[in-house]
Amino acid sequence: MGGVTSVERRRGPRAGNPGDTRSAIAGAALAEFAERGFARATIRSIAARADVDPALIHHYFGTKAGLFEEVLALGYGPAREALSDVVAGPREHAGERMARAILTLAEDPAFRGQILAIMRTAMTEPEVAHQAGGYVQQALLPALATLALGPDPRRSVSLAMSHLVGLMLARHVLGLDALQGSVDDLVAEVGPVVQGYLDGGTR
Amino acid sequence: MGGVTSVERRRGPRAGNPGDTRSAIAGAALAEFAERGFARATIRSIAARADVDPALIHHYFGTKAGLFEEVLALGYGPAREALSDVVAGPREHAGERMARAILTLAEDPAFRGQILAIMRTAMTEPEVAHQAGGYVQQALLPALATLALGPDPRRSVSLAMSHLVGLMLARHVLGLDALQGSVDDLVAEVGPVVQGYLDGGTR
Repeated sequence: MGGVTSVERRRGPRAGNPGDTRSAIAGAALAEFAERGFARATIRSIAARADVDPALIHHYFGTKAGLFEEVLALGYGPAREALSDVVAGPREHAGERMARAILTLAEDPAFRGQILAIMRTAMTEPEVAHQAGGYVQQALLPALATLALGPDPRRSVSLAMSHLVGLMLARHVLGLDALQGSVDDLVAEVGPVVQGYLDGGTR
Repeated sequence: MGGVTSVERRRGPRAGNPGDTRSAIAGAALAEFAERGFARATIRSIAARADVDPALIHHYFGTKAGLFEEVLALGYGPAREALSDVVAGPREHAGERMARAILTLAEDPAFRGQILAIMRTAMTEPEVAHQAGGYVQQALLPALATLALGPDPRRSVSLAMSHLVGLMLARHVLGLDALQGSVDDLVAEVGPVVQGYLDGGTR
């Protein structure tokens, strides 16, 4: 808890650029939420980990809930960027692009760590699950739903995404032997299934 | 930590039947692993939670790793039972049965809690992930692989299972609106996709 009561500016990221300070705080918050859960993490403990004054966190983010929204944006940010490329391409091959985007992102341990930290927290903290679900529903699904035909585009896209996230977990967390090998091979197998959902293979 | 140093027999389950005592210890271990992670949970803390002597845990399970194997068996037990029914039926409709079995099990909050506790622990504890992955690979996948055609039945089944587990998370943890509704409707949409994998839709 040392140094919690004064703004510390020893290291680079927190010395100048407010954007870097925000990122440092959000990174510390992600680690705290993952380790201790949303309910038990405090602004004070996050401030100590980020080596900043708690008042600065209140200044930037308001409440703990506001801070968690930033953490979600940080975690989903790279996915959202990749998926804007997915959305930009032709609809007939969107399944392949979607599968490739998620599986490629998941090869990056840093991205994987963020997503898994959010998922782990969501599994034990109903409030976090609610917020994460809201974020997916408001930010990711509407963009992807433009790629889907059929009577219920959001359901089609949700089915497709659930498959890809489950695949990421089975490949990288459980480490199933049968799901190792190249991203290209997996995309060749899973892409058509995702495309099937996008083409309207729903009720 | 009170009562840790003597075998306590105050409540029913631990008063007589050794099977009940084992279950009580395994349940306490699951809760401890989920809350504190595999590395930080101790035989002593699990014993305190189960209200038994630590020596009894060593007697029944040997090491902490042995205890975790029991926890996995406890969590996957109901799934394994359901899946033996899946395996017993005709191969041509196994996709539908597999989807129905998992989605129906996931409707039970007690089962869901166990599976999610194991998954959450696996997400932060590489040792637990390794053990859970081993259990899936040695116990679940070989049985299911008998249902799959194609050049790589274990891969086909792994792809199918990853979809269904991802769907369970999206429906019950994130609570996506688009994936609510009846199990029957979901089975009608997802069953044919699972069947496609079983029919050999792999590399």
